[in-house]
Amino acid sequence: MGEFELIRRYFLPLAGQQRSRSLILGPGDDCAIQRIPEGRELVFSIDTLVEGVHFPVNYRPEFLGWRALAAATSDLAAMGAAPECFTLALTLPAGDEQWLAGFAEGLGRASMEFGIALAGGDTTSGPLTLTLQVHGTVEHGSAIRRTGARPGDLIAVSGTLGDAGAALDYLNETSPSPDVAAVLDRYHSPQPRLALGQAVRGIASAAVDISDGLLADLGHILKASGVGASIDSARLPLSLPLKRLKGEGAPGLALRAGDDYELCLTIPTERWGQAPQEVRQQLSVIGVVEASPGLILDGTLCDADDGFDHFRSRP
Amino acid sequence: MGEFELIRRYFLPLAGQQRSRSLILGPGDDCAIQRIPEGRELVFSIDTLVEGVHFPVNYRPEFLGWRALAAATSDLAAMGAAPECFTLALTLPAGDEQWLAGFAEGLGRASMEFGIALAGGDTTSGPLTLTLQVHGTVEHGSAIRRTGARPGDLIAVSGTLGDAGAALDYLNETSPSPDVAAVLDRYHSPQPRLALGQAVRGIASAAVDISDGLLADLGHILKASGVGASIDSARLPLSLPLKRLKGEGAPGLALRAGDDYELCLTIPTERWGQAPQEVRQQLSVIGVVEASPGLILDGTLCDADDGFDHFRSRP
Repeated sequence: MGEFELIRRYFLPLAGQQRSRSLILGPGDDCAIQRIPEGRELVFSIDTLVEGVHFPVNYRPEFLGWRALAAATSDLAAMGAAPECFTLALTLPAGDEQWLAGFAEGLGRASMEFGIALAGGDTTSGPLTLTLQVHGTVEHGSAIRRTGARPGDLIAVSGTLGDAGAALDYLNETSPSPDVAAVLDRYHSPQPRLALGQAVRGIASAAVDISDGLLADLGHILKASGVGASIDSARLPLSLPLKRLKGEGAPGLALRAGDDYELCLTIPTERWGQAPQEVRQQLSVIGVVEASPGLILDGTLCDADDGFDHFRSRP
Repeated sequence: MGEFELIRRYFLPLAGQQRSRSLILGPGDDCAIQRIPEGRELVFSIDTLVEGVHFPVNYRPEFLGWRALAAATSDLAAMGAAPECFTLALTLPAGDEQWLAGFAEGLGRASMEFGIALAGGDTTSGPLTLTLQVHGTVEHGSAIRRTGARPGDLIAVSGTLGDAGAALDYLNETSPSPDVAAVLDRYHSPQPRLALGQAVRGIASAAVDISDGLLADLGHILKASGVGASIDSARLPLSLPLKRLKGEGAPGLALRAGDDYELCLTIPTERWGQAPQEVRQQLSVIGVVEASPGLILDGTLCDADDGFDHFRSRP
């Protein structure tokens, strides 16, 4: 089957099922066209996933479709942006129709769940690689950047951390226990915190999504803001399945493992008290922003290499 | 060298050298931010280039940087859009600093030449693959689509065709003749027709850029518009170097070879006469749009497989 036929069969239906009000022209021309509503600005991010680096070889295509869009959309959550549409550049070794059907199924479910419409794409022949660019919008000047953390701000994270990292030990489990199934679900079906990201605009002073591990991603905020932090590992939000599976190893996973796609925020103390209860309920305060650069973990200054440059610890 | 360090050293300077008025926030955060001027809409396209498929193995990184951005930006030209900014997702086997320096040099020159600013990106480890997304803007409703061709419209192409296709025979030439050097230059340093694309808004009824060959790309217009065409191969614009190098093979290259990044337009006859002389001078009329689907070449109906589905003829 030719490329056009594959695209028509598996991706054009996705473009029709979830629409974006701002998308004027979708797939099929040289370019797509988006009309940004007055008073809003475009927020966008591009992300690549390579087989064997960012996901396992022979990974289930249904999971891959979901995870790829979840990981990309998580960057919009970190800016407090409302999702609008995305493009997909898919490089495939061969036009395997069964694979494509599964991939499109996972991608389509994620597209509906996150409310983000397929705007266009490119399909090429080569080693399995996916690049997605996501588009969102925010009111002028209201996006949450990494640069706004100030000494004294509280550091908070959403959900629980470390689950997706723990799942790496169980990816080949054929009959997983309920605890194993719970952490596998976090790995295969991450949920970008889109509603929370939008809810903390005007509250959070800085935000990042946790894709590479808490220490690494918090490190981005600290560096961009020119500040430091102290963190109390006893306050890390850990799920019961993680604690039962990993015991004393759980906090280490919560600090260093990636793929959770939770948010890490800094929040000025006075705004924390004013934040809606449903926002506070989704967050755990784990530390405070310090004036001196560096990260203090349980009273001890961390080595800068311990999780800050995550690329050294990834293939 | 870690990924962050590589990005800082080679790509951040590019983000500074060519700016876009609409780009509010460039590389370094979870997302970039673009503010689309009032009355304009965003026009965007994503393109992937794979080593060994879209460019030769061990291709010079300076050429690759230029060609990748030229090929992507050409889609903006085909819509009549003004270029604004782009993102780059670069997958590299290893952080080869010399390669990166050359690539950034070619990309940077193209960025300045085309007036398109680096807005963000992602660098990952894996088989050499580049994905670029380009952003442009047009006044509301003024983008040139593929769907507007009507029977009786003239079919015109810019520049000369077939040169880049001819170059494929000479890529390893060490001391090229002037004619060979001329066609090699068309292959290595394509020039997207950005000014022409913007000049034909309101004149052209449909447009496409010629990346996959005239017959294939004109075929996209015909299919999208539900029309046919007749083409006179004697009117194809051929360069002197191409004619001297390829003789009777020249028209075939002009019809079927890709990588020229010229524009193919349809223009209602009454608007052709009203078009500014400097626009008409850049165009060659090669045929006319017909009501019946199908493409008639020199009086003979072409087989639909003859260049229409270009993916069958590419690896």
